[in-house]
Amino acid sequence: MRRRQFIATIGAGAAAAAIAKPAIAQSAPDIKWRLTSSFPKSLDTLWGGAEVFCKAVAEATDNKFQIQPFAAGEIVPGLAAADAVTNGTVEMCQTASYYYVGKDPTFALSCAFPFGLNTRMQNAWLYRHGGTEMMNDFYKKFKFVALPAGNTTCQMGGWFRKEIKDVSDLNGLKMRIAGLAGQVLSRLGVVPQQLAGGDIYPALEKGTIDAAEWVGPYDDEKLGFQKVAPFYYYPGWWEGGTVVHNFINIDEWNKLPKTYQQILRSASDTANIAMTAKYDAENPGAIKRLVASGAQLRPYPQPVLDACYKAANDVYADISSKNPEFKKIYDNIVAFRNDQYLWWQVAEYAYDSYMIRARTRS
Amino acid sequence: MRRRQFIATIGAGAAAAAIAKPAIAQSAPDIKWRLTSSFPKSLDTLWGGAEVFCKAVAEATDNKFQIQPFAAGEIVPGLAAADAVTNGTVEMCQTASYYYVGKDPTFALSCAFPFGLNTRMQNAWLYRHGGTEMMNDFYKKFKFVALPAGNTTCQMGGWFRKEIKDVSDLNGLKMRIAGLAGQVLSRLGVVPQQLAGGDIYPALEKGTIDAAEWVGPYDDEKLGFQKVAPFYYYPGWWEGGTVVHNFINIDEWNKLPKTYQQILRSASDTANIAMTAKYDAENPGAIKRLVASGAQLRPYPQPVLDACYKAANDVYADISSKNPEFKKIYDNIVAFRNDQYLWWQVAEYAYDSYMIRARTRS
Repeated sequence: MRRRQFIATIGAGAAAAAIAKPAIAQSAPDIKWRLTSSFPKSLDTLWGGAEVFCKAVAEATDNKFQIQPFAAGEIVPGLAAADAVTNGTVEMCQTASYYYVGKDPTFALSCAFPFGLNTRMQNAWLYRHGGTEMMNDFYKKFKFVALPAGNTTCQMGGWFRKEIKDVSDLNGLKMRIAGLAGQVLSRLGVVPQQLAGGDIYPALEKGTIDAAEWVGPYDDEKLGFQKVAPFYYYPGWWEGGTVVHNFINIDEWNKLPKTYQQILRSASDTANIAMTAKYDAENPGAIKRLVASGAQLRPYPQPVLDACYKAANDVYADISSKNPEFKKIYDNIVAFRNDQYLWWQVAEYAYDSYMIRARTRS
Repeated sequence: MRRRQFIATIGAGAAAAAIAKPAIAQSAPDIKWRLTSSFPKSLDTLWGGAEVFCKAVAEATDNKFQIQPFAAGEIVPGLAAADAVTNGTVEMCQTASYYYVGKDPTFALSCAFPFGLNTRMQNAWLYRHGGTEMMNDFYKKFKFVALPAGNTTCQMGGWFRKEIKDVSDLNGLKMRIAGLAGQVLSRLGVVPQQLAGGDIYPALEKGTIDAAEWVGPYDDEKLGFQKVAPFYYYPGWWEGGTVVHNFINIDEWNKLPKTYQQILRSASDTANIAMTAKYDAENPGAIKRLVASGAQLRPYPQPVLDACYKAANDVYADISSKNPEFKKIYDNIVAFRNDQYLWWQVAEYAYDSYMIRARTRS
């Protein structure tokens, strides 16, 4: 630092000290925001993350910064949450970014894509490998800042009326599945269907569709699919660790005092841990109840997984050839994933392998 | 609520509103605390968690609540951190609770014990299965409140000068290992040794000890063990997901305004995610460098793991027979672990299995 600069800086510091009191007063303004969620209140896992977040912000600010959460449909429909943030209808939303792959497939990369990262790896990439920074560069054009705020953990591979024994069994199957996973499966003959949660059960019952994916045991249990499509496949290879985000309108973000920005960051972390922990704590009981009431667990056969893996790589190659922003981030994640699984198989996987085996013997 | 109570409450609410301004002023007092860490600054993973935590608190409060972190030995030695909180020398510490199994083996249960929970399961138990509440009931007699604030992820199983091919190879082995893992291994003939980090390398080089455990690739790399004890075993079955905690003196905690309590909780969550993500992001590069410089990876043979598992259960049965507080919490964790691994093997493990296999082919 040059001497003149140094003196100028000192001067600015002294001036700042002199007006310290009013600055502090301004640093804790009364603010009321609205958060629109992509999720209904009935999904207490996902919606619960928004509640945990809003409560943490209120408690950290003595209720001076109040964010009221609204369920999907109360202000805008669930899948319009991001648009509502972009155009300033609400200050922020809680959503899964892959809902917006229709705008740009790059949206999937901060959330989940077939054969992507697992839950821990998502956090490692987002928080410590530049993932959040890369995604927020991309999100600038949509006028929001994205903070990770939850994870569904690895999902299940969907409910089927008939068993899938071979890749050919996928051909012609009408399945409720969206986004990149739908694109991958359509290469193997699946006809992807878009249906709201409440319409899935009757469609499976009538045979209008043959299969449907939702989330995992705890969320799926509420919809009772085991009664009409009992074959419950695993793993959910299109959602290895689906991230939920808070999207915050960038102008509203920039207006906040730094203290409130930090409180939003840490409250998002609190929601991230709470949602992940809730799924992990609740799924074991749910899978036991589902099996007791008729669900039949089936692993995807290896040749089916292999065909899906190949189809997924073809989809990514196609998108990458047309979309350099997607390619840049996707390539970064794939290199990261390769290193992650190189290490994962050593300590983590060997530990889990032993514990799974030990459990059934003791 | 009875009518009279209701009116009294309304009255209190109105009174609170009338004095809102002064109450808010008191809700953001200037506070300076000291945090003593059990870790040296050279372990930037563990120590880094304390830095992340203190920074998050300062930024959320406009520097009104400042917590200065001190490395092990600057105020008290690393293993005296909890005592320094109990007796009020410092307001809080950052530590691994299993360091204090000498006071009571129950301390291990919030941190790590042989064949315990993995990283995700630790969070699920602590945050969503009453683990933090159970542990804080226990910690009352030590006068602190414990908040989870980091995780090392699954550790490695230590460095050995000679290969371990059989359970009998453990007999007479002098190994730098502490706590419950040391008790378990001593039942198989290992002679546990206590050595500070800096003393391990020369002891291995001279052959004063035959083996040593430290953490995992990223932390171990700094000490260069591969040059003197090249056989690097996995998994670290005594540390499936070691939790780091913030211990806060209970009187100091109770003096804080609710806003600051919430800020400490969320900042601890921020540190928890940051430390886990840092280990996950850094370990893959470190294991590659270690192998390139001479480390020889070896899985623990199944019969060795089986013997250790049996010895661990014997240790827990012994402790449980004498310590009802340990038994109550341990039994809770074991039931939780059984359910966790029942579910884990379905989606998570099947997903990781496929991704590990796919990685080596693509």
